[in-house]
Amino acid sequence: MKDNIIYAFNPRFGKKLKDKVEGKNPLFLCVIATTETAKIPGISAAGQNPDLIDYTPSADVELLYYSHCRCFHGIPVTPDGVPTPALITLSALKLSLIPFLVVNGGLKVDPKTPYIDVGGSPGNDITTGHAVKDPGEIIERAKLVGKNLAENHDYLIIGESIPGGTTTALAVMLALGIDAKGKVSSSMSVNPHSLKTETANEGLRSMGIAFGELQDDPVKAIESVGDPMQAATVGLVLGVDGVVPIFLAGGTQMAAVAALLYSMSPKSLQQAGIATTRWIVEDKTSDIRSIVHRSSGIPVIAANLNFAYSKHRGLKAYEQGVVKEGVGAGGAALAAILKSRNKITPIVLERKIEEEYTQLVEGNK
Amino acid sequence: MKDNIIYAFNPRFGKKLKDKVEGKNPLFLCVIATTETAKIPGISAAGQNPDLIDYTPSADVELLYYSHCRCFHGIPVTPDGVPTPALITLSALKLSLIPFLVVNGGLKVDPKTPYIDVGGSPGNDITTGHAVKDPGEIIERAKLVGKNLAENHDYLIIGESIPGGTTTALAVMLALGIDAKGKVSSSMSVNPHSLKTETANEGLRSMGIAFGELQDDPVKAIESVGDPMQAATVGLVLGVDGVVPIFLAGGTQMAAVAALLYSMSPKSLQQAGIATTRWIVEDKTSDIRSIVHRSSGIPVIAANLNFAYSKHRGLKAYEQGVVKEGVGAGGAALAAILKSRNKITPIVLERKIEEEYTQLVEGNK
Repeated sequence: MKDNIIYAFNPRFGKKLKDKVEGKNPLFLCVIATTETAKIPGISAAGQNPDLIDYTPSADVELLYYSHCRCFHGIPVTPDGVPTPALITLSALKLSLIPFLVVNGGLKVDPKTPYIDVGGSPGNDITTGHAVKDPGEIIERAKLVGKNLAENHDYLIIGESIPGGTTTALAVMLALGIDAKGKVSSSMSVNPHSLKTETANEGLRSMGIAFGELQDDPVKAIESVGDPMQAATVGLVLGVDGVVPIFLAGGTQMAAVAALLYSMSPKSLQQAGIATTRWIVEDKTSDIRSIVHRSSGIPVIAANLNFAYSKHRGLKAYEQGVVKEGVGAGGAALAAILKSRNKITPIVLERKIEEEYTQLVEGNK
Repeated sequence: MKDNIIYAFNPRFGKKLKDKVEGKNPLFLCVIATTETAKIPGISAAGQNPDLIDYTPSADVELLYYSHCRCFHGIPVTPDGVPTPALITLSALKLSLIPFLVVNGGLKVDPKTPYIDVGGSPGNDITTGHAVKDPGEIIERAKLVGKNLAENHDYLIIGESIPGGTTTALAVMLALGIDAKGKVSSSMSVNPHSLKTETANEGLRSMGIAFGELQDDPVKAIESVGDPMQAATVGLVLGVDGVVPIFLAGGTQMAAVAALLYSMSPKSLQQAGIATTRWIVEDKTSDIRSIVHRSSGIPVIAANLNFAYSKHRGLKAYEQGVVKEGVGAGGAALAAILKSRNKITPIVLERKIEEEYTQLVEGNK
């Protein structure tokens, strides 16, 4: 029998974290934002065209709340028709009855759902060197949210949806002096590393920032070449301040957030881990272990989902390296496994995901 | 020794409710909104002039988060300089470490704090008969918030800040067939009942609504002559759906919300009470007991605060019937007493309020 959970990095601390939260009651937060960076041709698979990119994060959280999207017809898919990982998140949250809230980091199009506003604006193209407006204010407001939500919840899981987010992740890591070139993940099976590196470097160059120059000024790194999701998530975690465990639910984007946090307040990460999918930790086109090893050092834990035997082409594509992660899919799946003390297994989740897929994508709804 | 708590209506159920939540961990929510109705001369004491009225709810929650206001200099006061009840709420939440979140029901001026957006817009003057834009959507979004927050909290306290809210309360109650004329409270010591009744009647008349005509259509009542706070609060409570106890923290405005809820879903009130201040339940110019008796029948419980011996003129004025309640002051005070199992007494609260008053109003900060 295969394991439900993969301890992909720092397993000793990862297992401790798991023991702490197993059977407990978390809150899932999904931080959504947009960055114009996603519209650089070739950067992101989210949305079939640049305009749809603006709608993707909002459509994702509409899916979580209503089991259908309201801001457009259908659901977010890659150009090949592979569905958003929100489908995984939705299934995991439904099965485990884990409550969730949305945090709006800064969006072109607001979702037709309730959301927590932290004063953010949509992110600019990082090649301008002015990526995020007033990240300090976003961080301060998000801190107040994290502080208050930590009070009555056993732990928090924080996911994200921001097309283009791995490029901004790369850029802030370069600013912090973490050589993540060729190591960030992609929602496409062919990872456009050189385009991402060029884009990140252009952003740094436009502000005259050398590699590692902002290692002691992570807020400036976000402001120059980051994205609003990073600002909001950093704020939430700083607000929790290590008081309860936190899972940063995502791939290399969350590794970048952890790196930012490590440079601001290692204490805020004292009970933190990255929760992701098997597709991220087994990905040959990226290297989350190497990134985390060079930066925050926090554990990386993955939900052992496998769509190889799915009857749906759109889900099988996950095994070819399409999509991989997003909307906190891995973290939500992990939390469902942990809250249920392994009653909700990856197999149970896969069945539920197939069911939701059938209803949504094949239009039986 | 005086009692810490006054059971002002339906004491039997009120005591049961108290027993259920004593020592438990609540979440405090403050629902803020504006209505143009507040700008009718003579309706509201909030703000020294009509423009300030737009800022009052936002300034109130800024006070809760930062212990000072950001959207304007100073703090909200009546024309006579009597400070906002947010001072009581702030002191109670600080002492008891009760977490809190803000819900934006629809505002002219957004606060410089984090807040939960439920898709609301600022309320119109009820004399137009088109008071609230799309209350159904606000209610649906707020329901999702209530449902998710109920999951991991022992109980909820929901306060409000909306200048002009007792007039809109009167108007919806008349639409529901509850004769609350001359019974709603006021933030002024001389309660302008005839002006409120005229205003409410004008709103009903402009839509051709007779007394009691909307008893089976509370959403239409809100839409025609209510306010956005009512829509958001109704949604929150419907979302909780009786699963955990709820205190509606306010005076006759919350009695009106309870009446709306009673007409929509009595089940949603099965563990609900109104939590308020002594100044409301002892007020000679209004009659919350009579309103609740004729509508929802839920218990009314008051925190036994007394400012008679305060050294500050601004606080002493509460004993002359100025301000009385708002920003969930009575509910926050009650929750502090209950959470601490009477360790935080009204006396302890009064001392903390004096301290905060000194820092804020006398500018030692």
